[in-house]
Amino acid sequence: MKTISLMGASGSIGTQTIDIIREHPTEFKLAAFSVGNNIDFARKIIVEFQPKLVSVQEHIDCNTLKAEFPAVKFTYGEEGLIEVATYEKADILVNAVLGSVGLNPTLQAIECGKIIAIANKETLVTAGHLVIEAAKRNNVPLLPVDSEHSAIFQALQGEREKNIERLILTASGGSFRDRTREELENVTVKEALNHPNWSMGAKITIDSATMMNKGLEVIEAHWLFQMPYEKIDVLLHKESIIHSMVEFHDSSVIAQLGTPDMRVPIQFALTYPDRLPLPSSNRLNLAQIGKLHFQEMDVKRFRCLHFAYLAGQEGGTMPTVLNAANEVAVAAFLEGKIRFLQIEDLIEKALSAHQTIQHPSLTTIHQVDKETREYVRSLL
Amino acid sequence: MKTISLMGASGSIGTQTIDIIREHPTEFKLAAFSVGNNIDFARKIIVEFQPKLVSVQEHIDCNTLKAEFPAVKFTYGEEGLIEVATYEKADILVNAVLGSVGLNPTLQAIECGKIIAIANKETLVTAGHLVIEAAKRNNVPLLPVDSEHSAIFQALQGEREKNIERLILTASGGSFRDRTREELENVTVKEALNHPNWSMGAKITIDSATMMNKGLEVIEAHWLFQMPYEKIDVLLHKESIIHSMVEFHDSSVIAQLGTPDMRVPIQFALTYPDRLPLPSSNRLNLAQIGKLHFQEMDVKRFRCLHFAYLAGQEGGTMPTVLNAANEVAVAAFLEGKIRFLQIEDLIEKALSAHQTIQHPSLTTIHQVDKETREYVRSLL
Repeated sequence: MKTISLMGASGSIGTQTIDIIREHPTEFKLAAFSVGNNIDFARKIIVEFQPKLVSVQEHIDCNTLKAEFPAVKFTYGEEGLIEVATYEKADILVNAVLGSVGLNPTLQAIECGKIIAIANKETLVTAGHLVIEAAKRNNVPLLPVDSEHSAIFQALQGEREKNIERLILTASGGSFRDRTREELENVTVKEALNHPNWSMGAKITIDSATMMNKGLEVIEAHWLFQMPYEKIDVLLHKESIIHSMVEFHDSSVIAQLGTPDMRVPIQFALTYPDRLPLPSSNRLNLAQIGKLHFQEMDVKRFRCLHFAYLAGQEGGTMPTVLNAANEVAVAAFLEGKIRFLQIEDLIEKALSAHQTIQHPSLTTIHQVDKETREYVRSLL
Repeated sequence: MKTISLMGASGSIGTQTIDIIREHPTEFKLAAFSVGNNIDFARKIIVEFQPKLVSVQEHIDCNTLKAEFPAVKFTYGEEGLIEVATYEKADILVNAVLGSVGLNPTLQAIECGKIIAIANKETLVTAGHLVIEAAKRNNVPLLPVDSEHSAIFQALQGEREKNIERLILTASGGSFRDRTREELENVTVKEALNHPNWSMGAKITIDSATMMNKGLEVIEAHWLFQMPYEKIDVLLHKESIIHSMVEFHDSSVIAQLGTPDMRVPIQFALTYPDRLPLPSSNRLNLAQIGKLHFQEMDVKRFRCLHFAYLAGQEGGTMPTVLNAANEVAVAAFLEGKIRFLQIEDLIEKALSAHQTIQHPSLTTIHQVDKETREYVRSLL
């Protein structure tokens, strides 16, 4: 029995993590979780799983729940998130929160020796050097939850790092895969939110359309697998059936495939190094699919991917700028304040305006994150 | 440094095994090998690799070579093959001979504790139960050399047997992939020998065209991976890029891919569990290939595959009959004595005529093999 604490329980990854725990009641126990403002959701999960510790965003919600569930410990805010992340009886922390709020609790959980199942991109993108250093020092495994990184992680089982030639992240191409840059000029929010393969949150769906999602994944892969950027490639593969691949120096390529179902990588992170049945997941039927397509990635067409490689290779605080600028720009697009291609322009401006600080501390990262957001907002 | 003895040095797998040894002189040493009648080839290999022991088919060739290379020990015939297989200084035996002649030496090598890299189909098809039992008893690894089995073996690295849902062997479809049964009526030997993806020997190329090759591979996979036949599927994949796959019970599929190059699986068997660089092998470029195709296997179109499943499921001496009947029928086709579709008819007749003997000894297997050959020849 593995005991789990879950940050970000009501999001897309959070609810699917709960599905997995529900499917395997003798294998997993949900001991602690955090939500934001979705208190009704929290109530349901408390009733179903009887956790020991729950954290919410607001003090007032914390008090409301305390009155309703006297047997559960409630906490709130940033401190609450850290309490959930470091909950002493948990073996694994699933970090499924959105945004840079996940960073500090993750670092604290690593210091407490928790296994980390990481779905929060910002943690590795903005502070990969700190997270990896802490994980190594505490001998804590960092288990990927993203389908691409899980695919690489699965392909690497039983293999040796020294034999890796390159990582090949596949990219569906997102909602606008088949459009030219000209055709992207006037796309709407609704069009951008219509992802062909995966059903995900709004932010990540826009990131898929701009290809920034893949860019952030390249930076994550750099940290998770300790691979230089020149050994990380991106390949357009519109069916999202091959979730990613590893090429070894003997030219052998190992790939992980499946129908698009985030529960598979989530469950693998929870069961690793073992697997458990997941009968409710659709089996892959390649004969029915018939064809898989592959295409070179065009970084002129997808400028955000190019920016991500540049920021990653520059290192230091530059990926923080990339991520913060992107978050503000995507929010502005979703609010109808800017056009789709202006997302790229804003990121480019933020990257150009920034002087990289190498080996930044957590404080520096937070400072640069804040300054970048202010700067990009000033451009709106 | 791993010391290798190689049975069948002058064949397709044999020469490519030698290529691998040549590419890694500090890793591998060729200590012993066997050839048939290709004495000029033997001379070249002796000069280049200075082996300690060489076996040839005929006594007279043995004497000729003895006079030329006094520092090398020479031997011949069936006894010679066993001497090579059990050569005491060898760590690994590569069994790359054609036909059932490989069986006895392999069993002897297993008893001597040699690691077995197995490219000889007949050994597992006709005596899988004996080979697996001996390998288990002597704690000897059986390493596959066939590209399909190597793909499955690579996909299984770091995984647990209990989690396997099914093995998926891919099949190119051979020379006649796109022809109907009617169009197969009058195909010529030359057409049958023109395989679209792999350059191989005549027998195996015909076996690819009839799909018997895949059938034999299904039986091999049954033994190598201890999988029941209902968990072994065959999928048509005309590009031969995905060399085979494993589906796990969480619905995750791990595949091994690459350009068609037999040196990759041969080398993996020799380097296992590590890998070594193979810079001369063409890298896989999926963007350049563009599309991979998959199609359900039609056992009415490819009757030999159906026969192989039946013979495998029946077990006992039935796979020996399948293999022996196929060898005689293919030879007759290559000699122009029968038409292509008569290969199937002869196999079907041999299977129908045979009364299965369960748990056959080596003697019984040899006897049934001999009787089957005589029976099929009597039908020509």
